[in-house]
Formats: sequence, C-alpha cells, structure tokens
Amino acid sequence: MSQLDHKSEAWSALFSEPMSDLVKRYTASVFFDKRLWQADIAGSLAHAAMLARQGVISATDLADIRRGMDQIRQEIGSGAFEWKLDLEDVHLNIEARLTQLVGDAGKRLHTGRSRNDQVATDVRLWLRGEIDLIADLLEDLQRALLQLAEHNVDVVLPGFTHLQVAQPVSFAHHMLAYVEMFSRDHERMLEVRRRVNRLPLGAAALAGTSYPLDREWVAQELGMEGVCQNSLDAVSDRDFAIEFTAAASLVMVHVSRFSEELVLWMSQNFGFIRIADRFTTGSSIMPQKKNPDVPELARGKTGRVVGHLMGLITLMKGQPLAYNKDNQEDKEPLFDTVDTLKDTLRIFAEMAGGITVQREAMEQAALKGYATATDLADYLVKKGLPFRDAHETVAHAVKAAVTHNCDLSELPLAVLKQFNPAIEKDVYDALSLRGSLNARNTLGGTAPVQVQAQIERHRQRLA
Amino acid sequence: MSQLDHKSEAWSALFSEPMSDLVKRYTASVFFDKRLWQADIAGSLAHAAMLARQGVISATDLADIRRGMDQIRQEIGSGAFEWKLDLEDVHLNIEARLTQLVGDAGKRLHTGRSRNDQVATDVRLWLRGEIDLIADLLEDLQRALLQLAEHNVDVVLPGFTHLQVAQPVSFAHHMLAYVEMFSRDHERMLEVRRRVNRLPLGAAALAGTSYPLDREWVAQELGMEGVCQNSLDAVSDRDFAIEFTAAASLVMVHVSRFSEELVLWMSQNFGFIRIADRFTTGSSIMPQKKNPDVPELARGKTGRVVGHLMGLITLMKGQPLAYNKDNQEDKEPLFDTVDTLKDTLRIFAEMAGGITVQREAMEQAALKGYATATDLADYLVKKGLPFRDAHETVAHAVKAAVTHNCDLSELPLAVLKQFNPAIEKDVYDALSLRGSLNARNTLGGTAPVQVQAQIERHRQRLA
Amino acid sequence: MSQLDHKSEAWSALFSEPMSDLVKRYTASVFFDKRLWQADIAGSLAHAAMLARQGVISATDLADIRRGMDQIRQEIGSGAFEWKLDLEDVHLNIEARLTQLVGDAGKRLHTGRSRNDQVATDVRLWLRGEIDLIADLLEDLQRALLQLAEHNVDVVLPGFTHLQVAQPVSFAHHMLAYVEMFSRDHERMLEVRRRVNRLPLGAAALAGTSYPLDREWVAQELGMEGVCQNSLDAVSDRDFAIEFTAAASLVMVHVSRFSEELVLWMSQNFGFIRIADRFTTGSSIMPQKKNPDVPELARGKTGRVVGHLMGLITLMKGQPLAYNKDNQEDKEPLFDTVDTLKDTLRIFAEMAGGITVQREAMEQAALKGYATATDLADYLVKKGLPFRDAHETVAHAVKAAVTHNCDLSELPLAVLKQFNPAIEKDVYDALSLRGSLNARNTLGGTAPVQVQAQIERHRQRLA
Amino acid sequence: MSQLDHKSEAWSALFSEPMSDLVKRYTASVFFDKRLWQADIAGSLAHAAMLARQGVISATDLADIRRGMDQIRQEIGSGAFEWKLDLEDVHLNIEARLTQLVGDAGKRLHTGRSRNDQVATDVRLWLRGEIDLIADLLEDLQRALLQLAEHNVDVVLPGFTHLQVAQPVSFAHHMLAYVEMFSRDHERMLEVRRRVNRLPLGAAALAGTSYPLDREWVAQELGMEGVCQNSLDAVSDRDFAIEFTAAASLVMVHVSRFSEELVLWMSQNFGFIRIADRFTTGSSIMPQKKNPDVPELARGKTGRVVGHLMGLITLMKGQPLAYNKDNQEDKEPLFDTVDTLKDTLRIFAEMAGGITVQREAMEQAALKGYATATDLADYLVKKGLPFRDAHETVAHAVKAAVTHNCDLSELPLAVLKQFNPAIEKDVYDALSLRGSLNARNTLGGTAPVQVQAQIERHRQRLA
Repeated sequence: MSQLDHKSEAWSALFSEPMSDLVKRYTASVFFDKRLWQADIAGSLAHAAMLARQGVISATDLADIRRGMDQIRQEIGSGAFEWKLDLEDVHLNIEARLTQLVGDAGKRLHTGRSRNDQVATDVRLWLRGEIDLIADLLEDLQRALLQLAEHNVDVVLPGFTHLQVAQPVSFAHHMLAYVEMFSRDHERMLEVRRRVNRLPLGAAALAGTSYPLDREWVAQELGMEGVCQNSLDAVSDRDFAIEFTAAASLVMVHVSRFSEELVLWMSQNFGFIRIADRFTTGSSIMPQKKNPDVPELARGKTGRVVGHLMGLITLMKGQPLAYNKDNQEDKEPLFDTVDTLKDTLRIFAEMAGGITVQREAMEQAALKGYATATDLADYLVKKGLPFRDAHETVAHAVKAAVTHNCDLSELPLAVLKQFNPAIEKDVYDALSLRGSLNARNTLGGTAPVQVQAQIERHRQRLA
Repeated sequence: MSQLDHKSEAWSALFSEPMSDLVKRYTASVFFDKRLWQADIAGSLAHAAMLARQGVISATDLADIRRGMDQIRQEIGSGAFEWKLDLEDVHLNIEARLTQLVGDAGKRLHTGRSRNDQVATDVRLWLRGEIDLIADLLEDLQRALLQLAEHNVDVVLPGFTHLQVAQPVSFAHHMLAYVEMFSRDHERMLEVRRRVNRLPLGAAALAGTSYPLDREWVAQELGMEGVCQNSLDAVSDRDFAIEFTAAASLVMVHVSRFSEELVLWMSQNFGFIRIADRFTTGSSIMPQKKNPDVPELARGKTGRVVGHLMGLITLMKGQPLAYNKDNQEDKEPLFDTVDTLKDTLRIFAEMAGGITVQREAMEQAALKGYATATDLADYLVKKGLPFRDAHETVAHAVKAAVTHNCDLSELPLAVLKQFNPAIEKDVYDALSLRGSLNARNTLGGTAPVQVQAQIERHRQRLA
Repeated sequence: MSQLDHKSEAWSALFSEPMSDLVKRYTASVFFDKRLWQADIAGSLAHAAMLARQGVISATDLADIRRGMDQIRQEIGSGAFEWKLDLEDVHLNIEARLTQLVGDAGKRLHTGRSRNDQVATDVRLWLRGEIDLIADLLEDLQRALLQLAEHNVDVVLPGFTHLQVAQPVSFAHHMLAYVEMFSRDHERMLEVRRRVNRLPLGAAALAGTSYPLDREWVAQELGMEGVCQNSLDAVSDRDFAIEFTAAASLVMVHVSRFSEELVLWMSQNFGFIRIADRFTTGSSIMPQKKNPDVPELARGKTGRVVGHLMGLITLMKGQPLAYNKDNQEDKEPLFDTVDTLKDTLRIFAEMAGGITVQREAMEQAALKGYATATDLADYLVKKGLPFRDAHETVAHAVKAAVTHNCDLSELPLAVLKQFNPAIEKDVYDALSLRGSLNARNTLGGTAPVQVQAQIERHRQRLA
Repeated sequence: MSQLDHKSEAWSALFSEPMSDLVKRYTASVFFDKRLWQADIAGSLAHAAMLARQGVISATDLADIRRGMDQIRQEIGSGAFEWKLDLEDVHLNIEARLTQLVGDAGKRLHTGRSRNDQVATDVRLWLRGEIDLIADLLEDLQRALLQLAEHNVDVVLPGFTHLQVAQPVSFAHHMLAYVEMFSRDHERMLEVRRRVNRLPLGAAALAGTSYPLDREWVAQELGMEGVCQNSLDAVSDRDFAIEFTAAASLVMVHVSRFSEELVLWMSQNFGFIRIADRFTTGSSIMPQKKNPDVPELARGKTGRVVGHLMGLITLMKGQPLAYNKDNQEDKEPLFDTVDTLKDTLRIFAEMAGGITVQREAMEQAALKGYATATDLADYLVKKGLPFRDAHETVAHAVKAAVTHNCDLSELPLAVLKQFNPAIEKDVYDALSLRGSLNARNTLGGTAPVQVQAQIERHRQRLA
C-alpha cells in the first residue's frame, strides 16, 4: 500500500497520530495551488520521459504515466477531478490519482525528485507563461496609448511641475511619457523571465539525487534556458518571485501615476478629458455623479501589489537553507499579483479607447499660469543676456502681468521693452502656445515634429 | 421603476451605455464583501428604526423592512440567496432583494445615507466583532503558555543573547516572555477597538444629510462608543483599518519569534522540545522527516500580514478627501489579516499543549558556553572588586577553562584562586545552574520564586 | 586596569586580537546614538542612587558618580566631550569617561545592569520625551487649523468624492476633518507613550541580576509607569519602537492627504488658495513659478516614515530571544521618524497661517458639477417619493441640464416639473449652495451651525 | 545681478518675501546631496562643451567654465568650499560659486537645462559609478566564498530542510549555494545599470528646450548608453532608483540568510564554525561572550534597505507628471542603500577569510537525524520497489531505529532484512555519509566530483 493512501491516518509509519484537522487546514495549499496543475503535469511528464530515457523506469511505466496524465488532464479540465484536502497540495493530489489510475507506474513517478524541486519547477513554469501574457498586455497598452497620441499630436495642454503650470506640451507627448514607462516595464519583465526560466528539477529534496538524471534534457524539453546549478539554491531560491513582484510594482506605480492624472483631468476644475460611460459608475445617493472608478481602483490596487512585494521579502529574509515551509507562502501573493496585473493592463488598454480629449479646456488651461515665461527668458538669451539675468528679468515681467491680471502675451510691446529694450515685436511669436511648442525641437522635446518622430519609432518597435 | 432594477443596462438615466463587462468584474466587490452581510443588515435595521422614530419613514415601512430583512437573513444563512455581480456589492445586493420583497419600503431604506457611510459602518461593525474574537484568542494562547510554564518552572535551559549561551534561565520564565508579548497585543487590540467602534452612519455621501437623523441613537443601538464628528472624515477615514493591521503585524512578529525558537528547539542539534506528531508533517522523499510545519508556516504568514499593512498605508497615502474608489481595496487585506490571525492564534494555543519539554537536553546545553561566568563576576564584586575589574578577571578564568576544555565549575579551587585570591569554596554554589538561577531573584528575574509570582499574577489577570 | 581602557586592543582577555577596523566602523553606533546622552545619564544616576539605597555601592561612590556625571553633562553640552569610535556607543563612552574622572566608583556603576537593559531604558526615556513634544505639536497644528476654520465657516467649496464635484461643503468643515485626524493621532501617541514608559532596567543581560535591586524605585524616580515584568522580554522587546512608528506613519498619511489637497488647490485650475511666498520656491528655469514645495516634500516624506516602519518590522521578524545585535538597527529609523515628524508638524502649523482662501474661486467651482442634485432628490423624497425613485428622476433632470449646458437651478420651473409635477417654486432654495449647506444640519454635517458647534467643542478640548 | 546672489532675500523678483527659515531647512538638500558634486561638475562640463560645440556659448565662455570648475573641484576636494544652506542644493551652490569665479560665463551654464534634468542626470551618473563598485564587491565576495568552498569540498555537514536533518551535504556545496545567489545579484545589478545609464539632460524643466542641444553627443561624452526619449518621462522617472533598491534588497536578503546560518553555526549547540575574534564582540556584563555581531548586524540592516525600497515606492505612487518636489526624497534612501551595501559586502568578503570550519562537529551532527534514510529508500528502489513503497518501508525502519536509539547504519542486517528481504550487506555503503554524498552525482548535486566541477566553472567565470 502506498504512503499516499493512508495520509488521512498518518503521514507515514513514523507518525503515531494523524494530523490535527486544524493543522490540515492551516497547512494545506491545494485550494490555491491547484492553479498550477498544468505546469505540474507538464513537469511530471518531462521528468518521466527522462527517467525512461535514462532507464530508471521502463517504457511501459512511461506509457502508463502518460495515459494516466491524459485522463487527469481531462478530469481537471472538465471539473470532474476531486481535489482532496487530505492530500495537501496539487502535487500529491495528482500523484495519488495517477497511482489510482495506473498503479505502480504512478508510484515510480516520484523517483529522483522531491516536492521541494517539484513545486519550484511548477511555479517557474507557470510564472513564465504568465509573464509572456503580461508582456503582451504591456505591448497592447502601449499600442492603445500610441493611438491616442497619434490623434492628438497638436493638442496643447499645460505641462505641470509641482502641479503648477510650467510649459505647454503636446497631449501626444504626454501620452508618450507613459509609453516609455510601459516599455521599460516590458524590458524588465523579459529580464526577469530569463531568471524565472531555469530548472530546479533534479535538485530533489536539497542535495541532488542518486539516480542518473539528465537535467539538461529536461530543461530543454520544458523550453527552459538552463538548469539551477546548485541543488540547495534550487529548492530554496525565491528570488524570481521577488523580482517579478518588484517589476510588477513598478508597472503599478506607472498605472497609478497615469490614474492620478486621469482622475485629475476628469475633475470638473480640469475637464481635460471624458471617459466613456462604460468605464464609470454612479453614486447611490448623488444622481449627478459619473465617477472614474477604474483609474481610482487601479491606483488603489498599487497598494496590493506593493504589499505582496513587502510580504515576499519579509518571508525570505533570514531563512536558513534549504527549503522551509515558510516558502509555501510565496504562492498567494504571486497569484494575486499576476491576476491584478493582467486585469489592470487589459482594462487600461480598453479604456484608452474610451478617452475623449477636451482640446478646448486643455488649451484654455495652458493659457493660464504664464506657461511661456521660459520662452521669454530664452528669447532674451538669444539677444545676448546670460540665462540667469534673463530669468530675473522675466520674473519682473511676470510680476507686472500678475498686477495687470493678464498674460505675458497681452502686455504691450512698450511695457515689455521696459524690462529689456532688446525685446522686439517678434517676441509675441515666442509667447504663443504653438510658438513655445514648436521651439522645443530637440530630441525628446515636445515639438510636434519630435513627437511625430517618436510615434514612428514606437510604431516600428511595436509592429 | 427603481434605479437598481436596470443596473445591468446603465447606472442611471445619466449613463448612455452599460458598464463594460471587464469593468463590472474589475470594480465589483460582492464576491468578497458579502462577508459583511450581517453587519450590513444590522446597520440597515438600526438606520430604519431611527428613520421611523424620527418620522422620516412610517411604522409600516419599518415593519416591512424588518420582515424583508428577516427573510434575507434566512436566505443568506441557508445559501439560497442569489448574489449578483451586476449589483456590485453586498449593499446593493441586499437592498435590491429587499425592494423585491417589500416594495417601496425597501426603496426608502437608503434615505439619508450613502454607500460611503454605509460601507464604513459595516466594516467597523464587522471588525469590532472580529477584534473581540481575536482578543479572546490572545487570552487563550496566554493561558496555554501559562500552563506550559507552570509545569516547567524548574527546568533550566540556556538563555541566549546573540544566540550564544548567556545565562541559565527557567523554561517557564522563557514562556512568560511570550505571555508578556501577547498581553501587550491584547492591550493594543482593545485600544484599537475603541477607535473602530465609532459610527460614520449619518455622514451620508460626505456632507451630512438634510433628514433629521438621530445619529447618537443609532450609535447607541449598535453598541458604539460615539459618532464620527465630521462627515468628510467619517467617509474617508481608514485609520482604523491601518491601526488594526499594525497591531496584527505585531502579533505576528511575536508569533514569528516564538516560531523561530520552536523550529530551533526542534532541530536535532538543540533537541530541546518535541512537538506532537499531529502538528508535524513528513517529507515526500525523506522517510525520516518530522517537520515543524506549523511554526514555519506561521513565521511565513508574518510576511502576509505585514504586506497587508504596507498595502493599506500605500492605499491611503496622498488621497484627497473625501471618499475615493481606492478605498474599496481596504477590505481584502483586512479580511485576510483577520483570518490569518484567528487561525494562527487558535493553532498555537492548541499546539502549546503538544509541546514536550526535553529537560535533559536543555540542561545539558546550559552547561556549555560558560553560562555562569557572570555569576563569578558578581561573586567577585561581592568580595569588593569593581564590576569592570571583576569582568576582566573572569575573562581570564574563562580563557583558562577554554584551554582546559572544561567548565568554570570544573576548574579546581587552586586554579580559580590564581585569578583572584578572594575566591573561596562557596564559589561552586555560584557556578552551578541552580545557584545561578536562584540568584536572579529580583522583580522580573528568572529565579523560580520570581517566576512563580509572575505565573500567579498572570493567572489572576486571565481568570 | 578596567576592561574599557584597552578596548582598542581587544574586547577582553578572552579575545586574541583587536576588532578589525572595518568591523569597528560597521558595528559602532556612537555617531548616531550619542543623541541619547541625556537619557543615558539620567538612567545611570537613577540606577546609582538605587544601588546606594540598597547598599550595593557606598554613598561616596554615589557622590563620585554624581560629580562625574555633572562634569560629563557639561562637557557634552559644551561640545568638549571627545566621542571615541573605539568605545562603540554612547554608553561605553560615558562610562569610560566617568571612570577616568572618578575612578573605581565609575567601574561600580555598571553593577547589576547590562548594556542590553541600559540601551532599552535610554531609548524609552528619550522617546517618551519626544512623544511629549510631538503631542504638543499635534495640538499646535490642530489649533492652527481651527483658526483657519473659524475664519471660513461660511466659505463654500465643492466637496469631492472620486475628485468629482459631489456636494457643497463649508471650508471650515473641510479643515475640521483634518482636526479630527490629528486629534486621533494625538490620542494614539498618548496610548503608545504608556507602553513606551516602562522600565527595562534591572533585567540586566537577559535573566535579571543577583544584586538586590529595587526596580520599582528606579521606575518611580524616572517617572515611569511601571517595570517590564519579564527580563527576557525587557531586553528583546522593540514593540514600542514599531508602534510609535506605526502611529507616526498615520500622522504622515494625514499630512500627505492634506498636502495633496493643498497642492491641488494651489494649482491654477483650482486656484482655491494661495500659500504665502515664504512657503514656496521658484524654478531655476521657469521665471513664473511659485511651487508649493512644503506640502509636496511633506507628502514625499511619508514614504520615508513608512519605510522606517517596514524596516523595523522586518528587523524584528523571526528573531529568537533575547537580545541580538540586529536590534541596534532600531535607532536610526526611530531618530529619523521623530525628526521628520517634528519638523513637518511644526512647519504645517506655521504654514496654516500663510494660507489665503480664494472664496470666489471656491464658490465658482461649487456651482459646477450639479453639486445640489442630491438636494433635489431629497426635495422629492420630502414630497413622498421613495429615495431610489427620486434618485432616478433627478438623473433625468441632470441629463437635461447637461444637454442645455446649464445648472439645475437654471432650469425653468416648467422644465423641472416635467420630471415630477410635485416640484414647486421653493425648489430653487434647495438648489442653491447656501440652501444645500444649511440643509445638512445633523451632527457632523456641514451646515454652518453644526460646524460652529464643532469648532466650539475643539476649542474647549484644546484649551 | 544674478538671481542666485539674492536668494536669501527672495527666490526671484516675483516673490514678496524671503523663504522662512523653517522652510529653508525643511526643503534644503545641500547637506546630503553635496555627495553628488563630482557628478554635478562632470555633467555641467559635458553640457558646457556641447553648448560651445553648438554655438550657444562661446569658446571663451567654455574655457572660463572649465577653469572655474577646476578650481571648485580643488576647493571641494580640499574641504575649502563653503556650502550654503541659502543656496539649497549642490547644484545652486556650485553654480553660484562658478559665477563668483568666472562671471557671466557661469550665468550662461544653465542655458537649455533645468535643475529637473540636471539632478536626474547627476543621480544617474553617481549611481552608475556606485553600481560598478558594488558589482566588483559582489565578485570579491563570490571569490572569498569560493576559496572557503575549495578548502572544504570533503567536509560533510547535515543539510537541513525545515531545520531538521535532511541529507548529508558537502560544506563546499553549501557555500556554492551562496555563490549562486550573489552571482544572480551581480547579473541583476548589470541589468539595472543599463537603465540607470541613460541621459535625461536636455529635457530641461519638462518639455525640452529651444536651444539646439546635441543630447546624443552629451550622452556619449558621459559614457551613457542612450538618451531618455521623452522629456516628461526624463525628469519624472525614478524607476532606476526603485529597481536598484529592489536589487539591493535581494542582495541583503541573501546576506541575511547567510548571516542567519553563521549565527546558528556559531551557537554552542551547533558549533559548526568559529569566526575570528576580530569579527566578534564581547559583552559588557557576561565575561565569557564572543558574539557574532557582524552577521547579526548585517541581518538587521536588511530591514533598513527593504525599508528604503518601500519608502521609494510609496514616494512615487500616484504622483502626476512631471517633476514634483516629492522626488527630492529619492536621495537619502538611495545614498544609505549604497553605503549599506558596500560596507556589508566588503566586510563579508573579509570575514569569509576568518571562518574556521569545525569539521568534527559538522560530521557528528550529520550522523544524527537519520540523514541517510533517503539512501535506504533509493537502495530499495534499485532493488525494484516503487519509490512510494520504499519510502513507507524506510519509515518503518526509522521507527525501529528510533526505538533502539541508534542510527539506521547501526541496525544489524537481520533487523534491516525484516523490513525488506532484498536488503543485502552492501546497504551499509549506502547508509554511510560518504556513500550518501558520492551517490548524489548529478548536475548540481552535492557529490564532491560535482562540487569540484562547479568550483571550476565559477573560477573561470570570476577570473
């Protein structure tokens, strides 16, 4: 009789009593780790195939295992599979069912491996697949923002620093700032993927195994980039979970910054954009409300992902080698991080298409706050003033405009000349929104021609 | 027709299209906040009773609402209630069903309140109940540790600092250190409770309401200590969630420190305790293993709770007043924190009864590492040496003992006298484990008589 | 010769080589913990007085110690004291100097104590004093906000939920929301203080001591509320540091929320307030800028304090008893948290006096966004409609107003009547800002009369 | 007169009053950001050279600037430079001094740039240099561990899982696990470096500039890999600080795991290693103590770095574009993270040479806990039993050995045969420590031949 058959009585002959029910529930992971079932089966099949190649199990055993796994796949897929708390986790549940189905071959599957290397392998395989999905979603979102940018290259809004009007910028330019962020996120995800995609299997419990495994063959079979080179490290390493969650936190930081702006822009005092009704909700008490729930919630979900990062680091800090049960706690934060990221990226890509730009309101706002004061300073520099002196001269001019409650461009030439006689009529070009925008014509600047070039670059990159 | 009836089409007449399915799933909270249903009904009933008292709704309306809520309670309790994603959350689900059951009276229930004050009230009511359970569990755990202490007052183990043998301590004294920690946790929980137990209801959306509510009556009806005195604060405040999670993090820090010691003491090189088989698990590969899964997992779960604390703080940081949708993200971390705490405290109280103290191994270990060196220094001080000189003298004596590979108490009197002629035969009493233990007879010290007094104090406190 | 005299050669006779220079710098704390010098001397003097009372040291020794400490106080106060890296920390620096000054009496001071209980005592004494300062600053800030409120009871600004215009609120009411928050902070600080203010001294290294100490006398002498009842807990407990930092994090969360609003209100698109020039800075490039640096920086400093909280929890998680060197890392985060809090609270109290309310802009904004739509719904409820139906009716009315690009109060009565014939001329009172404000006349509501009552309550509380 | 000359009076002509002293101290950064002076000068010189190449300033201006900067370098290097609080930060301090020294040329330096892009450039340049140092230190530490491994390939210690004896492993193999971790850290640092090493300069305040800058030339001049392609992103991006701190947190997690083991191994109950006296400290009260302060403190410092990571994420979460003053708070956590990392890595590399392996104690411990039980199961599998059945059989054998209080290898053959008749005399080879070790001869396993191969691989990698 196999040890798994009487797990409800005792773990093994060594144990004098069954696990307490409280403990079973506390330590069981099957209700969340069953999500790994496809990775678990894939890993087991690669392991079995290798065992057969190496002569550790027979070809018949392999055939039995494959047959059994096929059926299990079907059972799980159809919902017919019975997950048992007594069998603790996804691994023992599948292995016990396999043994029911195919007998001794099932009991031979675990030869040369342990749950320690098995679970590490499963999580890595699963996460690799999720990273691929996330990378795609990051590109979808970039494409959606790019499209929004393309339609709004010549829309001017006030660029802010310190949330004070700073200089006019193109709305497209503003969107491209987020494209940059999400493109860095994409880059980081692919780097994390490389470290995720290494094979712990074959490390067994912690020390390697006495069976003649061919770990590199298994790695290749599973599409992995290499094997973990030290068995102790292989079973105890959770760096990949932490670095994935750190990369995910950065994605959410970017999402939250974008959300902050969307919420701001939707606010009546800005009125820079509308978001389609299907992305907003109403109020149970205030009949006039259309609330930007999606960006708000996304901003809130940043806390969730950052919390998972903190939790995972706290988890691993100070653990002695090799595997400790603490590590079981790596899964739920990882699962929730992946779900949050996928849902959020998907909904933002969709929502980008529901944003209507209120060009008028943006330009109106850009005319407040002396957004072209720097242009006046630059104008004076071109007339020969050192920059620092020009800066001070313009401060005086702004002070005068404030007193007259008008924009710099509304001060008569005579008044402007009082601040510096070199000021000529052409100053009014410099002081216009378009003039200011067009002037910022250096690599990375907001001049429409630069913005257009960037759009082109991104288009090609994302093609 | 009520607005809730056609929520699947649009939020209200103001909305030109229904919410996107993606958005519905992203923003819906019913699948986790239905946990609040009892608090939601209790809050609604108190609100309705007050509305009737104030003449805002009729006695018939109140009777209808009570009847409807009775049936809803039954439906939810029996599992017959149909929770709908389209109705977003627990609040709208219950209100919509109420209106189905009792008609217009149901539509009148929401008079003078908003979901903003309703959800804050529900969470507070629910959390108050959970804090009471947690406070009880903290006392149960203290009692279990006290019992373990009582049976082991005269068992000596090495007290460590820097994990180096420091001085002999009573095992009971060591357990009482944790009783102190969990008693501080209890104290903190009750303080948090006072701030949780305040009533937001009546703040409505953010500004109060135009109906003549009697908020203090509702607070009293719900057993709350007072009302939130500012409506904007009432709907936007989540301090109570953060401070509860901070207090919970401290509980888990204590649990993790205790766990670290249990794991250490179970390790073969210590062998200080055994934990009953029902609290341990085996290995899928190593047949000899009995692993202390429960303390390891509890140590790991500390990360989870700390992560939630971080998540909640990140959530609230920088939010403008009043309610923002971000706040919906307060629930899952709070729920999981409560679950983790309750499960962990319960299992630790039970497990304390499964700990077998290995007295021999502890005493053996206490004899290593010159645990009574301080006693020799104190002995010399009593003979007139300044402490700092005595310290240095003993360092020489220890050096000699190390060279001879023996304990201080095994050095002949003649050798000891070389370090200081004042040393007499009675030094060997000071150098024994019991002698050392008994000597630390000041308040809070490890002398058995002190430990016994502390046990007595705690017993009375916990009676 | 005392052990402290030759610390640069070796820790004690037991050590075969001096500490490596790298290690000295890595482990030394004197460059930051010297801040504790006053607490260290106060603790030492109380300890010495008690030793003399108990006959452990002579009256002459005590007199010597007092004399020596007086001189040391003077030396440190005047900057003449020479802090030595070789002497590691504030404690050994002061003790070594004392012994230089008064000889053997100095060497007797450390009788019956250890650095483990000494440092815990010092930190607690110091933190208690800082909490008192912080509590005062929290009250100063409340008073400053109260004053701002008092002058602006009848100023109306739009209350926001989801940053969408919700309902009109009084600016004073808005300020009082922050008074509530900082008053909760004050409450929490005092609770933390009680747990900070307990005496570890007498726990010695970890197990108590063999000298007949009178710990309760020392506690009383130092103004503490009690003694730590378990010696192991006394030296290893850092709960007080964590809970202080958690309370501090909440203060900063409130500051950051307030800052977020100040920054928003300063933005040209809001223009709700001005902040006096002395609290703003300019730009090195844009001559027109006045940036709200103080609130921005304060918002940023929230991260710093939250980071310290996370650092401290990570520090303590999983440490076995009793004292471990890890704990030395408790100080810098604590010091920086205290500094940040004090500076921030002080500057906010001062800045509150530099805020100029732009009443016009606020009221203008309150007229956007159909802020009185709820008032129309309430009006209909008073005419007999169930709330849910009234809500839907008003949604239709708002839709019409949006189409006409006007406020609800600008729709002619005939048009309003189309939505519900019960609407009469008196509806226009309900639809005005003042009408709406005055209507919210329940406890905690924004009606000026309620706000005035709250101001009165706070005034008395803070008197 | 330049604007910088009268900064103590007012920021610019626009300001009606000077900054309050409290605000000056609160917002000034010069006391910590002066650390960036070399990067600031390097960046300024590259900017000036480019301005001259592009004809924006004259060759004479450039020569003046270079001359002035040479002198400033000397002044700062010699400590003669006077840092002024009134000039806020390192940038204005250097620029103001430059203008003092060279007049108008100094005032022209800031043409086409802003402090926003300047500070981002400085931090990146500085961090790039620090990453290079850290990468080297990570390699030094790997080399030190490799050397420790090389000398101890055939030393056997018990490998633990759940801190329970699991299987025998080579001490060298254990050290190599850490080599793997630090090698991953190195890999990550180089990836972070690539994203750090991009040029924001030329983004000016947020929108680019109207001067014909050649940003790519500057990037090349400064050895950077490219320019930041979007000006808004360039000044607001702090991803690089967060991802560096995340990578640093992982380094510290590894350090803390290693430290945990060193502390454990130093403990009398293990006694696996000694650490040279120069890395330990004594106790102020217990004369026998030698405490492993360095690993303990390093474990504690993990909290500090993790706290900084959390602080930085909290800082950036939810900030609208572009630059906000919050960002000034990026520096101190970054500086402290770099310092902590460098100090810690340096001291660990040095300390590795001070570790003495206690071979006897390790092997003694490996003989406890039935470390070769898995070998017996594997032995039975090779005799034809399915693994799961072999596992259960061995559980029975272990139970018997526990009852007889002996190791498996001490059970007579007759007794072993009772559990399975296939067991022969050659079982005793499998049950020996060396037999077990040698058997784990697969890639990544602990067999000495595998360990030797790994050492060779690392040697070549690190050559």
